[in-house]
Amino acid sequence: MSHPLDNLRHQIDEVDQQLVDLLARRLDLVHKVGEVKSEHGLPIYAPDREAAMLAKRREEAENKGVPPDLIEDVLRRTMRESYASENDTGFKTVNPDLRYAVVIGGGGQLGKLFVKMLRLSGYRVEILDKDDWHKADDLLSQAGLVIVAVPIEVTEATIAKLTQLPQDCVLADITSTKSGPLQAMLAAHAGPVVGLHPMFGPDISSFAKQVIAYCDGRGSEQYQWLITQMQIWGARLYPTSAQAHDEAMTLIQALRHFTSYAYGVHLAAVDADVKQLLELSSPIYRLELAMVGRLFAQDPELYADIIMANPDNLNMIHSYHDSLGESVKLLEAGDKAGFVASFNRVSEWFGDYAQLFMKESKALLQQAHDSRHYQDDK
Amino acid sequence: MSHPLDNLRHQIDEVDQQLVDLLARRLDLVHKVGEVKSEHGLPIYAPDREAAMLAKRREEAENKGVPPDLIEDVLRRTMRESYASENDTGFKTVNPDLRYAVVIGGGGQLGKLFVKMLRLSGYRVEILDKDDWHKADDLLSQAGLVIVAVPIEVTEATIAKLTQLPQDCVLADITSTKSGPLQAMLAAHAGPVVGLHPMFGPDISSFAKQVIAYCDGRGSEQYQWLITQMQIWGARLYPTSAQAHDEAMTLIQALRHFTSYAYGVHLAAVDADVKQLLELSSPIYRLELAMVGRLFAQDPELYADIIMANPDNLNMIHSYHDSLGESVKLLEAGDKAGFVASFNRVSEWFGDYAQLFMKESKALLQQAHDSRHYQDDK
Repeated sequence: MSHPLDNLRHQIDEVDQQLVDLLARRLDLVHKVGEVKSEHGLPIYAPDREAAMLAKRREEAENKGVPPDLIEDVLRRTMRESYASENDTGFKTVNPDLRYAVVIGGGGQLGKLFVKMLRLSGYRVEILDKDDWHKADDLLSQAGLVIVAVPIEVTEATIAKLTQLPQDCVLADITSTKSGPLQAMLAAHAGPVVGLHPMFGPDISSFAKQVIAYCDGRGSEQYQWLITQMQIWGARLYPTSAQAHDEAMTLIQALRHFTSYAYGVHLAAVDADVKQLLELSSPIYRLELAMVGRLFAQDPELYADIIMANPDNLNMIHSYHDSLGESVKLLEAGDKAGFVASFNRVSEWFGDYAQLFMKESKALLQQAHDSRHYQDDK
Repeated sequence: MSHPLDNLRHQIDEVDQQLVDLLARRLDLVHKVGEVKSEHGLPIYAPDREAAMLAKRREEAENKGVPPDLIEDVLRRTMRESYASENDTGFKTVNPDLRYAVVIGGGGQLGKLFVKMLRLSGYRVEILDKDDWHKADDLLSQAGLVIVAVPIEVTEATIAKLTQLPQDCVLADITSTKSGPLQAMLAAHAGPVVGLHPMFGPDISSFAKQVIAYCDGRGSEQYQWLITQMQIWGARLYPTSAQAHDEAMTLIQALRHFTSYAYGVHLAAVDADVKQLLELSSPIYRLELAMVGRLFAQDPELYADIIMANPDNLNMIHSYHDSLGESVKLLEAGDKAGFVASFNRVSEWFGDYAQLFMKESKALLQQAHDSRHYQDDK
């Protein structure tokens, strides 16, 4: 009885082997594209070409009875490797006249990444770590770019020491809060200043499509080359004021990290049975549990500093706790109508975003389900 | 200068067209596998074959300079379509002697799905909806299987009416809470009883790898065929006691839905700028925002009923609010050392799961990033 299946499975294996060959060929071609782009200084992320190409493949797939979403997902996944491989060929040097760059805290995780990308772009880069300050005067006196990449709680104190930079040196930081560091940079240095916030962790394989928020300090025409350089790396540069940025971060970082932390504290307090929770989880709950659990694989100091960075964060957290308390009261009063009315008000407030989020999360949950391993069962 | 790129892009397009052809061929082969499996009553999800096949392809990929994770992700994504396509060929009828099945609430979303799957498996299925009760005596008097698939708040009252089922009829429900419905079924019916909780929504494309929790009522040898039938659909059946199930659901459903709801209420209360939050989001925050926003695209009544289903849920929510309050106090006292100590206790409590969750979420966040569209920018 297993004969007909064996034959079919053999044919499927052959198709899959051809798939491996095809992917190898595609990665090779993309590597060559990377070389050409690097030579001509073209950005590695070309959204229009990407959109046009995907539309064409979707159409062809449809004509051949292949679900269009399947080919799009497969190509998008493959392009991730392409972006990472385009990295290796290096990038055009936008500012060949730069004397050299110094990354302060360039031994840290995110600092290292900037060191690597600048070097791949043909710049000479020096690293100034916390034990290197005896070399600081020497290193900084001729720098053309200084990037401050130290932990958030020592950022402003570190910046305050940078009073002897050359007048034409670009001073930048990559801290997750912007108002304080930007003011400190403007106070310490009279030349061009720009605050950066890379919205990603150090473990990305490529800058392609990653967002970097930036806040103008002064001298935009003098630091424009740095913005262009990061665009060539594939990043999407998002200009914002330091104040608007920091306000958004009270939600995006402080409140989010705090609620994940508090949820973890509660799970531990009730001594939840994680193994059983996972057995009984839908993909969506497994994902939410993972989003909480991942926090606790990381550095507590970092999260303490981000959450306690400023009083606005604590105010936001306080008002969240109060608002949650109101919702608890509603439930304890058994007020189902009140719950539904409040729910509907929020739905209205979300507007079209609720449907967009439904669609987005559905696609992602399917992907989570695709890679379900059940490694715990065996 | 665009000439060399045009030529390379043309070659990439050719590779991608071959990719579409290969996927078409694979789907066709898998369709044939489905026919053979259906004929022989083999489960559509074969974890061992899948694991062996993926290991082989990973090895081949490695030898050809293709990242092994790339081929695994591409194949897993493709298998999703395969499972969905294997559905269409129908399933073996495990219990050909069944007179017929009745799905009460078979017009509802999840009810419809069970109607479809039972029919694809060769059973006669009748639907009893809330306006059909005048036909109930007739329909139920000869039923061999009755599945209760009505909204949670009328489940027990509906079950209480099922006192005249044939002695050999299997009675099951698919409510998200298990103790109450199971007791009600045992009280109403003297024959075989099993409580089911499908851990997924009605929008799945296949039962493959989906979890269904089940709680024995009585007469397991008489309802075993139903368990086997669902395994053939590809589902993973997880036996549990009603009490353990319901305890886990206070966390997996009630507290989770409540915290998403409360977060949405708070975002609306502070009138957050969703557009800007998205612009400045890392993939992880966009995902978390999506997990909250998706709730508000759905039915408030359903969530009210799930959250208010029993006093244990409210107790859990109450204790979460208290525990969150303790964490707020810690922060307001500026007690960084206390925060770090508490964080470390929770890390220890999560144990190896923290690293597992870190790895899992990283893979998923990369997938989220792959499909980043920036549809809002244009």
